[in-house]
Amino acid sequence: MIVWLEKGADASYVQRVLADLGLWALRLDGPEGTVGFSVQPWSRKVPLETLRGIEGVASVAAPASSHRLVDAATLPVEVAGVRIGGSRPVLMAGPCSVETPGQIEQVAGRLAARGVTFLRGGAFKPRSSPYAFQGHGEQALAWLRRAADAHGLKVVTEALSEASVPAVAEVADLIQVGSRNMHNSALLQAIARRGKAVLLKRGMAATVEEWLQAGEYLLFHGASAVVFCERGIRSFDASTRNLLDLGAVALLRHVHQLPVVVDPSHALGRRDLMPPLARAALAAGAAGLLVEIHPSPGQALSDGPQALRLDDFDALVDSLETATPAIRTPPAPPAGRADRAGR
Amino acid sequence: MIVWLEKGADASYVQRVLADLGLWALRLDGPEGTVGFSVQPWSRKVPLETLRGIEGVASVAAPASSHRLVDAATLPVEVAGVRIGGSRPVLMAGPCSVETPGQIEQVAGRLAARGVTFLRGGAFKPRSSPYAFQGHGEQALAWLRRAADAHGLKVVTEALSEASVPAVAEVADLIQVGSRNMHNSALLQAIARRGKAVLLKRGMAATVEEWLQAGEYLLFHGASAVVFCERGIRSFDASTRNLLDLGAVALLRHVHQLPVVVDPSHALGRRDLMPPLARAALAAGAAGLLVEIHPSPGQALSDGPQALRLDDFDALVDSLETATPAIRTPPAPPAGRADRAGR
Amino acid sequence: MIVWLEKGADASYVQRVLADLGLWALRLDGPEGTVGFSVQPWSRKVPLETLRGIEGVASVAAPASSHRLVDAATLPVEVAGVRIGGSRPVLMAGPCSVETPGQIEQVAGRLAARGVTFLRGGAFKPRSSPYAFQGHGEQALAWLRRAADAHGLKVVTEALSEASVPAVAEVADLIQVGSRNMHNSALLQAIARRGKAVLLKRGMAATVEEWLQAGEYLLFHGASAVVFCERGIRSFDASTRNLLDLGAVALLRHVHQLPVVVDPSHALGRRDLMPPLARAALAAGAAGLLVEIHPSPGQALSDGPQALRLDDFDALVDSLETATPAIRTPPAPPAGRADRAGR
Amino acid sequence: MIVWLEKGADASYVQRVLADLGLWALRLDGPEGTVGFSVQPWSRKVPLETLRGIEGVASVAAPASSHRLVDAATLPVEVAGVRIGGSRPVLMAGPCSVETPGQIEQVAGRLAARGVTFLRGGAFKPRSSPYAFQGHGEQALAWLRRAADAHGLKVVTEALSEASVPAVAEVADLIQVGSRNMHNSALLQAIARRGKAVLLKRGMAATVEEWLQAGEYLLFHGASAVVFCERGIRSFDASTRNLLDLGAVALLRHVHQLPVVVDPSHALGRRDLMPPLARAALAAGAAGLLVEIHPSPGQALSDGPQALRLDDFDALVDSLETATPAIRTPPAPPAGRADRAGR
Repeated sequence: MIVWLEKGADASYVQRVLADLGLWALRLDGPEGTVGFSVQPWSRKVPLETLRGIEGVASVAAPASSHRLVDAATLPVEVAGVRIGGSRPVLMAGPCSVETPGQIEQVAGRLAARGVTFLRGGAFKPRSSPYAFQGHGEQALAWLRRAADAHGLKVVTEALSEASVPAVAEVADLIQVGSRNMHNSALLQAIARRGKAVLLKRGMAATVEEWLQAGEYLLFHGASAVVFCERGIRSFDASTRNLLDLGAVALLRHVHQLPVVVDPSHALGRRDLMPPLARAALAAGAAGLLVEIHPSPGQALSDGPQALRLDDFDALVDSLETATPAIRTPPAPPAGRADRAGR
Repeated sequence: MIVWLEKGADASYVQRVLADLGLWALRLDGPEGTVGFSVQPWSRKVPLETLRGIEGVASVAAPASSHRLVDAATLPVEVAGVRIGGSRPVLMAGPCSVETPGQIEQVAGRLAARGVTFLRGGAFKPRSSPYAFQGHGEQALAWLRRAADAHGLKVVTEALSEASVPAVAEVADLIQVGSRNMHNSALLQAIARRGKAVLLKRGMAATVEEWLQAGEYLLFHGASAVVFCERGIRSFDASTRNLLDLGAVALLRHVHQLPVVVDPSHALGRRDLMPPLARAALAAGAAGLLVEIHPSPGQALSDGPQALRLDDFDALVDSLETATPAIRTPPAPPAGRADRAGR
Repeated sequence: MIVWLEKGADASYVQRVLADLGLWALRLDGPEGTVGFSVQPWSRKVPLETLRGIEGVASVAAPASSHRLVDAATLPVEVAGVRIGGSRPVLMAGPCSVETPGQIEQVAGRLAARGVTFLRGGAFKPRSSPYAFQGHGEQALAWLRRAADAHGLKVVTEALSEASVPAVAEVADLIQVGSRNMHNSALLQAIARRGKAVLLKRGMAATVEEWLQAGEYLLFHGASAVVFCERGIRSFDASTRNLLDLGAVALLRHVHQLPVVVDPSHALGRRDLMPPLARAALAAGAAGLLVEIHPSPGQALSDGPQALRLDDFDALVDSLETATPAIRTPPAPPAGRADRAGR
Repeated sequence: MIVWLEKGADASYVQRVLADLGLWALRLDGPEGTVGFSVQPWSRKVPLETLRGIEGVASVAAPASSHRLVDAATLPVEVAGVRIGGSRPVLMAGPCSVETPGQIEQVAGRLAARGVTFLRGGAFKPRSSPYAFQGHGEQALAWLRRAADAHGLKVVTEALSEASVPAVAEVADLIQVGSRNMHNSALLQAIARRGKAVLLKRGMAATVEEWLQAGEYLLFHGASAVVFCERGIRSFDASTRNLLDLGAVALLRHVHQLPVVVDPSHALGRRDLMPPLARAALAAGAAGLLVEIHPSPGQALSDGPQALRLDDFDALVDSLETATPAIRTPPAPPAGRADRAGR
């Protein structure tokens, strides 16, 4: 954003007013005493009209937003009857991979009892190595849906390829786009065209602006809503698996007014730090949490070391209820199969 | 850390147990069927004895800690009679630069009334450009001390050069090492030799391990205590001034059991996001906050855009009191000048 | 990699030998005097047998490679009759987007005259914004092939979606995977199954290990060869568009013995720095260059500011010929349409 | 930089001209049809007059440089009679630490015979851990100077603390500021006041702009010249010790016209990749190289794994002579002790 001064205006005065408003302004000098200020992107957001009203300001120009549909979204969004981004945080939890019908059924039962609304679980797994377990595919989708329905839960699961979009869209209430695919515009389009809500994980090195533009792809091509998900970005420090960026979460929630959930499991990779960071995420403005759970992490086919055991999860929810009273609010009564018809 | 198996041991079994414990283990194969596991640094911390007790494990070896004195520190630390890292969060606040006796006096009065314990203010300013304001130096130290004493506050202020250490140590209760100097071992030594407590800001691209080693320099050379301060690290995204790493805060507090405070002013550079991130910092385990305040940010000689106005600060404290009841606990009665003798 | 010592061995001696070999070894102490060394990943590559032969070493264990097919590849690779990774650097050049039949024809003629072997040009464009130009699609593929054939050039072009793979594979001699899709395993598989050679750009924040694993996906699913392409990674400094990592180029060429080309256009985004960095890329071990050219950069539908004009390109090739005599070696005589049958 | 258009000007035309010139311009829209362009920092450098001459442009404003003295420097600089940044690359080499009089004497003799001009060696070592070897201090300075003088070499060595500046300045022809101290303005000032030339290493996460501003501190406070040194920056990938940024080298040499040398030893930490990257550095525009050598790397007190053996260094120089004929030009005849008087 640029603030251009009238000739002869008191540039120091204008700079002081901008600083007072919370704007980092870099002074630019032109010929014949013309002066402008380039406003740094990490400045506080201030209405253009306020800036135009400053004495000595001739003109204020800003780039057109490249994500108009995202900007126009309002809080909360509703996904399969669940409000995300309202006063009550939404819990999404489940195993990294859906491994057996029994595993997902056991987990679903326990989670439903603790106020979880969305059951997560991977049927198609994005893996760095072609030799790693790639997920049980379509049959896992069926197990996941069945377990969710049995306990009145909604389903969030990832679509990894254009080819798998129809099958995933058939069972998911909220279709997940993984970190590795945030920049994959072909997949974004294929998913969006199903008209459902999408959980959009941030790319490992994506700027907030690129993340919002990926959201724009989704809305532009027909997604009914976008829920953003921060899951940690790449860092130079190996002491946590990724670097959780709660500044970005606060930015999305408080400046852009968007629903954003946090995945502390991938962000940290450390089970022992989950409770404090889950509480911090909610304090920063997260609309909910996406947490990996496993009844027996040592048996997990993927990401076991970061999965919470069922007991750990109970402790996490207890801790959240203490810190965030709203989370205790009873969820809507389990909707059961009747609701599925209306999805 | 390395886990070495007995010949013929069931390596898959051991790997499952490690995953169950929260350890990311990379399998290493040697000749004649020897197997080891290299444990990734982002794993949960588990006592070596637990690992040695796993069936099939022959030996466990770990690098010696390079910060034994830091490891031996216990919570809370006491700095000029104030407990940091106990149950009550500690507020440190004040202007970026001490500009006039009147400015710092006005600020001190307002802060004391809101439960702030440490008055901050820069007398020597680290600046990227030699043309920027470098601080009012020794006279500012005197103004700062006088204002603090008048309102029963403690003083935290930065020593920027070996030459200024004696003057700073004379007035400060807590000597600050800035981000730009975390790796400056000569300054760390000069400060430590004064025997006072030190607030150690994390370097802009320092790993947690390097940060702890800088703390070790301080304790090794005589500092009475080290309070760590996370202030954001360098990032590829310009939407916040720096990237606040609350994962590192949780790691220092919950794994290393160290006192760590958070400076949300420098971390974000955005006044509008301070309240949610201040609350998130405390939720993650911060022992306190270091906040920039200015009665008139537009007039500030440095960093005005990120300074909170006095009213903004009141609102911030109100919000913290709601979210973190412990912060309301009445502080110790103002100690006044009588206490100074005992510093 | 772990080096485990015999009980009672002289650990200092072993550490000196390791350092002498160029290995950064972190000492690990176990119970009863057991000692191991963890070798840091940025160490020189040394055969395991050499390490096992050191006096006092009991055992050496290393993780199994997660990219065995990539490891087994040999230099040079042959793509449509062109040797990549041999003594003569390979030039790949063309416009960011194929815009009109005339544009690509004009460019092809000029490039063929200067020893370029591969004509590049985008038919499907990966863009951060849904509102940006997305490429002319299948008709652009036809224009590109026709222009290449008319001048005896091979074709390299990007496949952006699973759906477009068949059309791209039909005309391309070398199928490009863009940075945004390096982690897109579904696309990697769809492309690999066509059995052609693939140009694999490094992801914006991909480690070398992840890049090699993406190559493994390609070879595992049937690609005939993989040519790696470094195009700059994400950085905290805005003075170049991306950060060119020639250390990774040297690593791929000299340690892994793989063909790697460099795209200095995207790496820098600065036309004025292309010649020195193109020469540096070849000096570091690049097997060739991928360069964006436009007859009239101001008219370009994408990335004009970084495109070289045709005259700039002539100057670049002149400069390369001076610095890298091998580049002057006459290429194989233009193969023309006769060759196409055998593609 | 901002380009402001006249009312009613053809904004698309102006944007095309800017792209043609190599400028990335972000369009900014104001009220009543006012249009401006914000030029991205990774754009080609174009004289402001050229931009002002574009039809439709009303005004061009740019920030004042924050490093005017650096901007005014010209190439080559002369340091103790050696031209740096001229046509002949300058070699600086020696051990990480000066360990014994015999070690540095042996190295000096071998290096002088291969055209090295500056002998490097650490007397005061910056170390992350207080328990690591910190250098032999003032006596090492004496050994270093004596060895250099005996073989007609100049001396470059690091000043680590304000307290050690006088002793270092007494023996050094070129005073080194290490990476950890680039942001240490107190040390920069103390060194600059001695009036000698300074080798300024780039901070681990310093932007090019911050690096130039650190150079400005040096010139502003009296340094006779500044030689910049790229030694790798922090990265997310552990496959090299640091990430060598040759784009920054080209930028300093070709855009800012400054002398910049490259330290491939610290950049990579891998002895096996030094020759290709040393050649690449010179191709990118480096005025010279700073290389770590040790007669017996296994015995080195610091950084042995990255030191070249004397034979490796011979091979490196042979390879550079082939690739960079100018490096063969005989250096000025050894100046011997007579020259010292005139330092």
